[in-house]
Amino acid sequence: MPLAGTTEFSRPSGRAPDQLREVRIERGFTRHAEGSVLISFGDTRVLCTASVENRVPGFLRGKGEGWVTAEYGMLPRATNTRNDREAARGKQGGRTLEIQRLIGRSLRACIDRKLLGERTITLDCDVLQADGGTRTAAITGAYVALVDAVQGLIDSRAIKPPSCGRSPIFGAIAAVSVGIYRGVPVLDLDYAEDSDCDTDMNVVMNDGGGFIELQGTAEGHAFRRAELAAMTALAETGIAELVAKQREALAAS
Amino acid sequence: MPLAGTTEFSRPSGRAPDQLREVRIERGFTRHAEGSVLISFGDTRVLCTASVENRVPGFLRGKGEGWVTAEYGMLPRATNTRNDREAARGKQGGRTLEIQRLIGRSLRACIDRKLLGERTITLDCDVLQADGGTRTAAITGAYVALVDAVQGLIDSRAIKPPSCGRSPIFGAIAAVSVGIYRGVPVLDLDYAEDSDCDTDMNVVMNDGGGFIELQGTAEGHAFRRAELAAMTALAETGIAELVAKQREALAAS
Amino acid sequence: MPLAGTTEFSRPSGRAPDQLREVRIERGFTRHAEGSVLISFGDTRVLCTASVENRVPGFLRGKGEGWVTAEYGMLPRATNTRNDREAARGKQGGRTLEIQRLIGRSLRACIDRKLLGERTITLDCDVLQADGGTRTAAITGAYVALVDAVQGLIDSRAIKPPSCGRSPIFGAIAAVSVGIYRGVPVLDLDYAEDSDCDTDMNVVMNDGGGFIELQGTAEGHAFRRAELAAMTALAETGIAELVAKQREALAAS
Amino acid sequence: MPLAGTTEFSRPSGRAPDQLREVRIERGFTRHAEGSVLISFGDTRVLCTASVENRVPGFLRGKGEGWVTAEYGMLPRATNTRNDREAARGKQGGRTLEIQRLIGRSLRACIDRKLLGERTITLDCDVLQADGGTRTAAITGAYVALVDAVQGLIDSRAIKPPSCGRSPIFGAIAAVSVGIYRGVPVLDLDYAEDSDCDTDMNVVMNDGGGFIELQGTAEGHAFRRAELAAMTALAETGIAELVAKQREALAAS
Amino acid sequence: MPLAGTTEFSRPSGRAPDQLREVRIERGFTRHAEGSVLISFGDTRVLCTASVENRVPGFLRGKGEGWVTAEYGMLPRATNTRNDREAARGKQGGRTLEIQRLIGRSLRACIDRKLLGERTITLDCDVLQADGGTRTAAITGAYVALVDAVQGLIDSRAIKPPSCGRSPIFGAIAAVSVGIYRGVPVLDLDYAEDSDCDTDMNVVMNDGGGFIELQGTAEGHAFRRAELAAMTALAETGIAELVAKQREALAAS
Amino acid sequence: MPLAGTTEFSRPSGRAPDQLREVRIERGFTRHAEGSVLISFGDTRVLCTASVENRVPGFLRGKGEGWVTAEYGMLPRATNTRNDREAARGKQGGRTLEIQRLIGRSLRACIDRKLLGERTITLDCDVLQADGGTRTAAITGAYVALVDAVQGLIDSRAIKPPSCGRSPIFGAIAAVSVGIYRGVPVLDLDYAEDSDCDTDMNVVMNDGGGFIELQGTAEGHAFRRAELAAMTALAETGIAELVAKQREALAAS
Repeated sequence: MPLAGTTEFSRPSGRAPDQLREVRIERGFTRHAEGSVLISFGDTRVLCTASVENRVPGFLRGKGEGWVTAEYGMLPRATNTRNDREAARGKQGGRTLEIQRLIGRSLRACIDRKLLGERTITLDCDVLQADGGTRTAAITGAYVALVDAVQGLIDSRAIKPPSCGRSPIFGAIAAVSVGIYRGVPVLDLDYAEDSDCDTDMNVVMNDGGGFIELQGTAEGHAFRRAELAAMTALAETGIAELVAKQREALAAS
Repeated sequence: MPLAGTTEFSRPSGRAPDQLREVRIERGFTRHAEGSVLISFGDTRVLCTASVENRVPGFLRGKGEGWVTAEYGMLPRATNTRNDREAARGKQGGRTLEIQRLIGRSLRACIDRKLLGERTITLDCDVLQADGGTRTAAITGAYVALVDAVQGLIDSRAIKPPSCGRSPIFGAIAAVSVGIYRGVPVLDLDYAEDSDCDTDMNVVMNDGGGFIELQGTAEGHAFRRAELAAMTALAETGIAELVAKQREALAAS
Repeated sequence: MPLAGTTEFSRPSGRAPDQLREVRIERGFTRHAEGSVLISFGDTRVLCTASVENRVPGFLRGKGEGWVTAEYGMLPRATNTRNDREAARGKQGGRTLEIQRLIGRSLRACIDRKLLGERTITLDCDVLQADGGTRTAAITGAYVALVDAVQGLIDSRAIKPPSCGRSPIFGAIAAVSVGIYRGVPVLDLDYAEDSDCDTDMNVVMNDGGGFIELQGTAEGHAFRRAELAAMTALAETGIAELVAKQREALAAS
Repeated sequence: MPLAGTTEFSRPSGRAPDQLREVRIERGFTRHAEGSVLISFGDTRVLCTASVENRVPGFLRGKGEGWVTAEYGMLPRATNTRNDREAARGKQGGRTLEIQRLIGRSLRACIDRKLLGERTITLDCDVLQADGGTRTAAITGAYVALVDAVQGLIDSRAIKPPSCGRSPIFGAIAAVSVGIYRGVPVLDLDYAEDSDCDTDMNVVMNDGGGFIELQGTAEGHAFRRAELAAMTALAETGIAELVAKQREALAAS
Repeated sequence: MPLAGTTEFSRPSGRAPDQLREVRIERGFTRHAEGSVLISFGDTRVLCTASVENRVPGFLRGKGEGWVTAEYGMLPRATNTRNDREAARGKQGGRTLEIQRLIGRSLRACIDRKLLGERTITLDCDVLQADGGTRTAAITGAYVALVDAVQGLIDSRAIKPPSCGRSPIFGAIAAVSVGIYRGVPVLDLDYAEDSDCDTDMNVVMNDGGGFIELQGTAEGHAFRRAELAAMTALAETGIAELVAKQREALAAS
Repeated sequence: MPLAGTTEFSRPSGRAPDQLREVRIERGFTRHAEGSVLISFGDTRVLCTASVENRVPGFLRGKGEGWVTAEYGMLPRATNTRNDREAARGKQGGRTLEIQRLIGRSLRACIDRKLLGERTITLDCDVLQADGGTRTAAITGAYVALVDAVQGLIDSRAIKPPSCGRSPIFGAIAAVSVGIYRGVPVLDLDYAEDSDCDTDMNVVMNDGGGFIELQGTAEGHAFRRAELAAMTALAETGIAELVAKQREALAAS
């Protein structure tokens, strides 16, 4: 497997293979939502809001548990050419549904839904500007919005953590894409790389180094075990950095 | 008709009856669109993008004219309580359709579609945060995005203005709401006033002082001629200020 | 502002600028509905039925108030060329939704919903033949159907007016269009005028001379304050005539 | 099989078992359509319009033949209790689709589509008031509207009948319902009978006495050969009367 | 009326005019459903499942009766050329709705819904391969699936037949198509005949020789009384054979 | 990581951890499609048809390439309890869209679309009976149907392989699920395991041992690198067996 280090390899952005784009996490971007985060992975910008409602879907009614779900959207001109507005077309596309199911599953992996109580937290992830990696930015930002919303519940004593003081949130979740670009495993693909790579993989992990979701697709040629190992290793380092960014953002008052 | 001046009258925001909220117009908010403006009327924030496409709707094909149209959306948690996402519900609501038809009609009133040529400019107005007056902010911001998009066509020589140097855009368009709040005519209602007023009117005007659209609704009691006159007079002064803000924003490089 | 009086001005129909088309109001046009009115404004013919149901929408349940709402439709060949049937297309268009929202808001302005009790009255306005002004005819006719339906509730003692004898209906509502046609303000535009005018305004008023709704659109050129004043004055006289027609129709047994 | 003649049998309407309701056919009910007929079978009233368009569906393009199709609708309060508007619900129900397919098939059985040329005639059948038998009234009325529309094409020389003078229409089509009500075969069921009968059959025939469509449903008990024969015999006499009514209506200028 | 017997007449399949295709009924084709039958009428193969649920539609709630309903579908490539998948198109077509309404009505004619109790049995009829007569095969197979499902309820004592030992099912239902093919009445049309016949009629009968549904359509020329009689006679013999096949299949353990 | 070998571990089916269910591949299950395969992974049965059409989607028109796409469906009672029919609900769910996108991407990885020419091959995968692993069975079966369809094109000389004799299909594709069940990595999960496992991963590979798609989801606890390695190793052996089964099925005439 060709790896980095050859003198001629370069990424369109000039980044090193294991280098994330600049990540910014801005809490409180809008004022109505219980959690509201504008996250940027370079030029990819996603507004993630967490909304708390005192009701649960039918299948959970009366069970004493809460629910966490996600919806994803892209503004029509978040991309290089304008896409039809899904509301005007009258349905969400397959890609949208796939992404919002992924975000929801990922975030449910860090919360104790019994401790949450009969509430639904909806994570709306709306892409204001897209440059590759919108779903991984969405997951990483939605986690911060979720923490803010749950903290609000604790602060207002709507949720009373048990004597041991546990919050319903028991870990951090972040996500990043990795891929094989011109034969070299790279971290956090931007659009230029994403549309020209051999393999593209989205990895969701927790802060304990465990995998939550792994979705790899061979675009050009099938990938091998060694490539898989190289990509997951890159993802691990990237996610460790993202978790640190989340902590830093949450530490700021 | 009870007018301002009584000592006890005050607006929830503390503004004077004829005072606009703080208006900010940020051009180039996103990078893909031919025009991209984030406009704020106080806490109301709308992202307006103008997208140029080299095609026209069926009814204009082959006629040598262009088209300007608008789409409007609100992020689910732009408001105080979360609204269903229209894309998920599978259709745009009546309010949305009404607003986007209004935006489109308003902006078509300032452009010579023959000079535009066989192109469509779509104005996407997406509300990031709502605090009343989203449609008037959208129209006011969309005008700036439209000017940027048309200027881009001129700069790239896609549109060649005739020798007389005319741009396809022949005037400015701005919009503001006025209403009767606790008996007093007021300018630019925020959500607190909007949900508690007797009459609410949206006014679209051009920079020549002409009316483009006028939509007034009696909420509590029917309004009288004198009230109509007072409201349109307020709108005129508000729109003159908004046109000045647009010019200022467009003058900045 | 050019006003009427020049020798050469003439309307396609030969009417004077302030002359309504022939208005006919036929009560009891169909037999199932609690109120059923066929209204004609010249060649525009709209069937307005009022249906009473003993339930209210979710947001009013248990509040002791009723609801009045409207739906609008046009038969596919009500117009000069056939339009797609909305039921077959699978959705109501923006124009339809806008009109039915307007009809509902207008009629709610004449009824005390507490006195109505927990009932819904639905006003179905279906255009059998269109020649301009369908929404204003619909509002004017729906008022008569609404009065008939409410009177039926009183007659059957379903509603018991309080000792003071008040009906839930506390005023009359009628609507008319006005516009600037070839520079002249005119009343009650037919299709020929509507499709060729500079400004078109729909005005809804009550029998006390107050404005309920005002929706003006500049088609060709922006309109001025004086034109607005001339149009609203025309509307006032037109609506006074329409209210008289409604009374006359309701007086007939 | 129990037949009429017992002293105690009576229809809710007092009609004889083989008696049609009063049938009225009013041509030119609306003015835009190429054919426009209001037909009444007693209290059932259906507006049937025929619209001519110079295009054919995709599967016929370039084949030199025309098409005849139908759409059916019921105003929401055509019936005793209000039905949801299909346009608002976002789809046509199964009953509606079934009926409009039946109307289209029936009318295509009387026209030479080659002689019609590459045109589509759409028959819109909208029920203004329902009292049983709306589909049979619709077929009977739509035939008259179709004849008027085709005659208009001939009169305007859009269709030039060949030297032998044949019109594209080569026969008459009419429809009626028959059923077994309280053991007795009856003709042209009204709503009271329809909702309380053992068997209900809709019969479409041409003026040559041939069957075009036959749709029988046992509601209460399965019907026997002899009952089938009695019902079809009743239908034959009823349709002969209806065809005479159609001729009479078409003979009037 | 030309009848069989001429030397030159032959059906595409070589069958005699009154000969059914080979009919196979395979119970227990899938394992989850309470009844699951794969029925073949020659190359037409339909999977019919009966699903029992302990709930009834809103209009029956609390009335102590059950409901039997049907849904029909065709796999996209059940036919000679691929049809769009209805789930992907977003709606069921008119033909589908018409057929599933027919299946539901037919099967409700053999069951005592009071004895069934507050349960819904849904008959899903999915065409795996089509060669004409899918709706008649579906009805004939769905009856067997329905019997199996009801027997399961009796066996598990969910339904307790009264002392007289009556099952909720009080008769058998089967269906077959008949038609006039090249002037000759024939039984059980396959696709080659169906697409080239003059008249096509679907007949549903019970095992007592009564008609449940009769739906005849003249494709080429109108049919006459004698043809109707010949077709219904053929249907009677065909259905008697089908009922025998159903009994045989149900007798096998 | 706890691995197999403890005496107490057992799978619900009694299979060894690395044991596939019985796999059967039945070609020519239906007769109309160019490829038609009924594949069984134990009780999971999926009908996969390949349909060839001489047209391509808009984005490929005129480019001299073909397209391969997939649609997935489940009969309403393929599962233990009945699911709503997607065609009746009016839309395909997120899970359905996700699966059919996966099938399409997977199969496109084994075909040279230039050699295919301007044709579309649609793979319809309809689940007749579900017991876990429907998407992996669908991919494995659809590959066989695809090969049959392409071979038909070659046999009929619609596709003329170049002198070197290459078929457009350049490899085999198969898929299997793997997971961690009660701490033990297992191959080819059935429903009982799938609904009770810690991690579930779907793996698509080609016959060269390369990964095409990898989709892993932590259900209970996050999975570790070693678990990922164990699961992908299991998948490799399972897929080698499946490819052998495909070859065997294709070798039979």
